[in-house]
Amino acid sequence: MTDVTQQAQGGESLGDAASHFSTEAHGEPAGPGRYVNVDSISPVEFLPGLGFRPVLGQRAMTNFVSFEPGAEAPRHVHEEEQIVIVLDGEFTFDLDGDVRVMRKGDVAIVPAWVPHGAWTTESHCLEVDVFCPPRQSLLKLAAAQAAQAEEAEQAPPSEA
Amino acid sequence: MTDVTQQAQGGESLGDAASHFSTEAHGEPAGPGRYVNVDSISPVEFLPGLGFRPVLGQRAMTNFVSFEPGAEAPRHVHEEEQIVIVLDGEFTFDLDGDVRVMRKGDVAIVPAWVPHGAWTTESHCLEVDVFCPPRQSLLKLAAAQAAQAEEAEQAPPSEA
Repeated sequence: MTDVTQQAQGGESLGDAASHFSTEAHGEPAGPGRYVNVDSISPVEFLPGLGFRPVLGQRAMTNFVSFEPGAEAPRHVHEEEQIVIVLDGEFTFDLDGDVRVMRKGDVAIVPAWVPHGAWTTESHCLEVDVFCPPRQSLLKLAAAQAAQAEEAEQAPPSEA
Repeated sequence: MTDVTQQAQGGESLGDAASHFSTEAHGEPAGPGRYVNVDSISPVEFLPGLGFRPVLGQRAMTNFVSFEPGAEAPRHVHEEEQIVIVLDGEFTFDLDGDVRVMRKGDVAIVPAWVPHGAWTTESHCLEVDVFCPPRQSLLKLAAAQAAQAEEAEQAPPSEA
């Protein structure tokens, strides 16, 4: 691991812990923080074998997507920027014609309106899509799933 | 898994695959897409045991953070919204006083200016912080690490 100070070039620091971890607030909290356990969200199947579990922030959304073997997110475009992070398994990603197999540790950056799609064949895949701003077409779904998860958390455990 | 159509309430759909996977572009691509392998980025140690590997988009940034046992990201605040996703191991997260142990599958939403911090004791932790907009204090670092990773990729393999 490289120390930040060793990275300085021409005397210019690339960042420092003191300013990064500043405790000086220049604004009011934009809302309460919250914890979410993704496993408490019931996945919604958007297409066969393609499960969506969106988690909504104010400026960004993360959507936890599971691909069963042989599932496909067809090539498409949208205005929201997307960052794809593979968490488990693998899938084939088509980034505007640059087709690669992505595994854990692989990330794809998809700027606004760049065509992309993904599919699995033999393997499953779990990945998270970061959308900035939140993906418009998933807002209702995210709200409904969050309400359902909250309800399940508050409900007394059902008798066996 | 629940089908989207089964989720419809009062006849209102929560989303549909046809509009989600639209191929109709209403703008020009905002830039070329790109792939990044996080393992190709040399982590920079911001504080002892705390390694940062930022991946920069245009509107959002993801920072892959590794905590060795006994590492700490001190309580701090910032303007950028943050979504924390634990990938491996565990750490203790302080979300404005709500202190919890987070593991794989746990997510924390940190709106602008909400105080937060995190630490490990016995365990290690690998997590990804999503920032929207990109975290200002990490921009130079992200650019330097990206340049270094690209250089390493283009350099001929060194002879043993």
